[in-house]
Amino acid sequence: MKITIAQLNYIIGNFEGNLEKMINAIDKAKKEGSDIICFGELATCGYPPRDFLEFDDFIRLANETIQELVKHSHDIAIVVGSPTKNPVIEGKDLYNSAYFLSEGVIKYVQHKCLLPTYDIFDEYRYFEPASTFGVVQFKGKKIALTVCEDIWNIGNENPLYTICPLDEMMPYHPDFVINLSASPFNYNQAKERHHILTENSKKYQIPIFYVNHVGAQTEVIFDGGSVVMRGDGTLYEEMSYFREEIQSFDLDKVLVPGESKVQSMDKIEKIHHAIVLGLKDYFGKLGFKKAILGLSGGIDSAVTAVLAQRALGPENVRVLLMPSQFSSDHSLADAMALAENLGIRYDIISIKEIFDVYMNKLDPIFGEKPFNVTEENIQARIRGMLNMALSNKFGHIVLNTSNKSEMAVGYGTLYGDLCGGLSVIGDVYKMEVYALAKYMNKDGEVIPTNTIEKPPSAELRPNQKDSDSLPDYEILDQILFLYIEERKGPAEIIAQGYEERLVKRILRLVNRNEFKRYQTAPVLRVSPKAFGMGRRMPIVGKYLS
Amino acid sequence: MKITIAQLNYIIGNFEGNLEKMINAIDKAKKEGSDIICFGELATCGYPPRDFLEFDDFIRLANETIQELVKHSHDIAIVVGSPTKNPVIEGKDLYNSAYFLSEGVIKYVQHKCLLPTYDIFDEYRYFEPASTFGVVQFKGKKIALTVCEDIWNIGNENPLYTICPLDEMMPYHPDFVINLSASPFNYNQAKERHHILTENSKKYQIPIFYVNHVGAQTEVIFDGGSVVMRGDGTLYEEMSYFREEIQSFDLDKVLVPGESKVQSMDKIEKIHHAIVLGLKDYFGKLGFKKAILGLSGGIDSAVTAVLAQRALGPENVRVLLMPSQFSSDHSLADAMALAENLGIRYDIISIKEIFDVYMNKLDPIFGEKPFNVTEENIQARIRGMLNMALSNKFGHIVLNTSNKSEMAVGYGTLYGDLCGGLSVIGDVYKMEVYALAKYMNKDGEVIPTNTIEKPPSAELRPNQKDSDSLPDYEILDQILFLYIEERKGPAEIIAQGYEERLVKRILRLVNRNEFKRYQTAPVLRVSPKAFGMGRRMPIVGKYLS
Repeated sequence: MKITIAQLNYIIGNFEGNLEKMINAIDKAKKEGSDIICFGELATCGYPPRDFLEFDDFIRLANETIQELVKHSHDIAIVVGSPTKNPVIEGKDLYNSAYFLSEGVIKYVQHKCLLPTYDIFDEYRYFEPASTFGVVQFKGKKIALTVCEDIWNIGNENPLYTICPLDEMMPYHPDFVINLSASPFNYNQAKERHHILTENSKKYQIPIFYVNHVGAQTEVIFDGGSVVMRGDGTLYEEMSYFREEIQSFDLDKVLVPGESKVQSMDKIEKIHHAIVLGLKDYFGKLGFKKAILGLSGGIDSAVTAVLAQRALGPENVRVLLMPSQFSSDHSLADAMALAENLGIRYDIISIKEIFDVYMNKLDPIFGEKPFNVTEENIQARIRGMLNMALSNKFGHIVLNTSNKSEMAVGYGTLYGDLCGGLSVIGDVYKMEVYALAKYMNKDGEVIPTNTIEKPPSAELRPNQKDSDSLPDYEILDQILFLYIEERKGPAEIIAQGYEERLVKRILRLVNRNEFKRYQTAPVLRVSPKAFGMGRRMPIVGKYLS
Repeated sequence: MKITIAQLNYIIGNFEGNLEKMINAIDKAKKEGSDIICFGELATCGYPPRDFLEFDDFIRLANETIQELVKHSHDIAIVVGSPTKNPVIEGKDLYNSAYFLSEGVIKYVQHKCLLPTYDIFDEYRYFEPASTFGVVQFKGKKIALTVCEDIWNIGNENPLYTICPLDEMMPYHPDFVINLSASPFNYNQAKERHHILTENSKKYQIPIFYVNHVGAQTEVIFDGGSVVMRGDGTLYEEMSYFREEIQSFDLDKVLVPGESKVQSMDKIEKIHHAIVLGLKDYFGKLGFKKAILGLSGGIDSAVTAVLAQRALGPENVRVLLMPSQFSSDHSLADAMALAENLGIRYDIISIKEIFDVYMNKLDPIFGEKPFNVTEENIQARIRGMLNMALSNKFGHIVLNTSNKSEMAVGYGTLYGDLCGGLSVIGDVYKMEVYALAKYMNKDGEVIPTNTIEKPPSAELRPNQKDSDSLPDYEILDQILFLYIEERKGPAEIIAQGYEERLVKRILRLVNRNEFKRYQTAPVLRVSPKAFGMGRRMPIVGKYLS
């Protein structure tokens, strides 16, 4: 028996486009003599569809897509994820289902049981959990269908659920498992995925065909990396990261013990590729081509520019250099050198005259009040506004260049450098930004050395340095990681040897700046805990603030 | 037996402050000779605590608050909501619990079973549902403890759950029910609350003491209106809306049939009071006093200014009048008249010179490109920036003045008029803004008649009117309501008699402008479906866009 995994990049709500993509994959699989083709979780509508699921019209379109796919199921069985109406009046209105289509009919439907409702996931908002379990018989084989999380309640220290769906299916003696996933990327995810798949394959002694999505859906990035597991706890093959792939596997071969074909890719390389894909899909799926950003000569905008150039092509990236009286000589030179290295268009607009006319107009109101953060913010906002002006006039999308460390402590100006349609490196800590820069320069200087080596500065007042108001990024990033990713409280962080006053100050900054993050662009998610939909904090509150 | 309902305004994460408030209420109830005092759902930590619940430290502080309350439970029993660690390793880590404290011990704990996970609610993200049910015995009475949603799965056309907790408790023959709620306001909520309470009281023939929160938590507003139900399906008394109240009820009196003491308040009056409370708490709880906004002479900023003046006092509200070459003569006059009516400080800053210097700097880049939305947006952004400059210099919080109709279709400039720390009327459709203005003028002109009567215009180009690019607000608001509040699809809306092209255009505008709403301030929620945390939409997608 031959099983095809179609690792595809869907668009949410683009039922026609998703269907067409699936039909092309079906045709390819048929040509390869495949018996079964598998698509991802909720592949008809894309994942995550979020509150579109609350529209009857949206569910109707998903059902119509299933009906279209049914027509293609004569010479091949199709396994595909789609939402299903719950016919029972009590409970949530929908199921998150795996459909088995064969011989022109819906042969079997298995609903998802374990509904992730944490971090970026909201599945219990929409779906009723499955309460019945079975297997589908096809060409003499019994197949257990599972959806994503259904195989994840195993081998965890702190299991989230009280049930394991495969435990319920085992009495039917399945020959193999198909798992339809939409399992978002973070730099640890492939390792965890392999762990979970190994645990399942070992415990149940059964082969698993694990199908993932690939591509970005606003902030959430799917890395692909679909996997075929043997029945002995070993990995047979892992499919590509970060690109579509359709591959057919011979069940007989999968059953033979042997080597594991896996990719090795380090954390920074993964982050790099994930962000490039995230940018590509944000633009491509929205129908945009061109990006603009402000290039300061600093490392954050430099790394963002390189990522944009690699994702969109040099002809589609344009930068503004907007020096003020506080900009250092090197800043402009470094920014120009980078733009030239990247082959991207740059324009220089001094912000001094605009700043002066603002100050003139505000002078009668400000009176004798001294220069402070107000004037710093005005400079940042003029730059944001110039970027937006070009965006409006020429159709460029402004890219936000803030890193995760800054976003965390609120070191950025709302409506200024926090502008932009997409936050490119908002889930990348400052030390990781340096690592990305180094990675980008591995085959020769792309980012000027000076940009990497000079002390970070916002250059909004004379001789300003980030270290004037923030601790060293090495320490800052560690404390932030413990608080944000690890969810440690102050006592636990201090117990790890960090200075009490510093820890409390940083946690206070994080909490008090929630209002800024609330108004910032969606952040491409690369870590296990990114700002945005996966981290939900009150703005008004008194905890650690 | 005497039962006290303490309808209080908590601050999320302010364990000490919440405790102090509860102890004061306990002292008052003791003086009144009460046997039991009841606080709201998760009263120790405030509601909704959101992802703070994922911090062990946060849960520890909630437990310490319970331990402190226990010390006060010698002459009075205390019923209070707080999170509880789930001792079982499988399942979610927490329960959402009602504690019964008496004689210096935790006498009973009943966990919440029905966990709202829709609209603004995320409870299944954190909590394991209760699986056991009982009653607590106290002074010869048996009491059924329930938490909020636990009594809501009754009398609904489309029940969300498959269980009714009170069905499980009835075999223990409780004498009355206590329900600890944190039930957010919308203009329909009191009616629905009365319906649900009536259904419960009728079905189980039992009195109910329903305790609600009051006060705003960022965007979510609690209206109070705690209720005592008799055991015959009739309402005994409803407590005040929109303010703290501590009131004691004699169970014997509650058992006697009689009149219902309820408040009548119409929709617009409720919205008015809710927003005033929302503003007051946003500022008060964050420790801010002063607000600033741009006054255009139009109705949205006028209504926002009145709400701010009523919430914060005239001495704490300041406005900027920022005419451009496109402002009508009346605009400035109307804005000044309003400021004078309200007794608030105003300053006038013409934006012409700033606009001109921007255009000079951009001229070499823009070349021959004609005037378009770019120049309109620059004007709006200059105004946003001036507001922010005063905010930074003097510590005013900028109020966003966009209404729900504009926010829906994206009729507003990101980083311009969409600036602000809080969206005051972002959940109020344009026609409701007019109704609010009329309500505000009921005892004499506050908002100049001209502001109410002139055709709405953004005044960003010569002779501009909203109706140039938008349908009449009467029609627009109806279509938006069907799509946003009622979640009707295009076919259903068209079937109600609206023009197909118009419907499709409006739905497309709503979906394509999700990116703007993503970056807008939190919106004070007054309707059953507000923009923000209760409406979660993808930015990148193709459905109706």
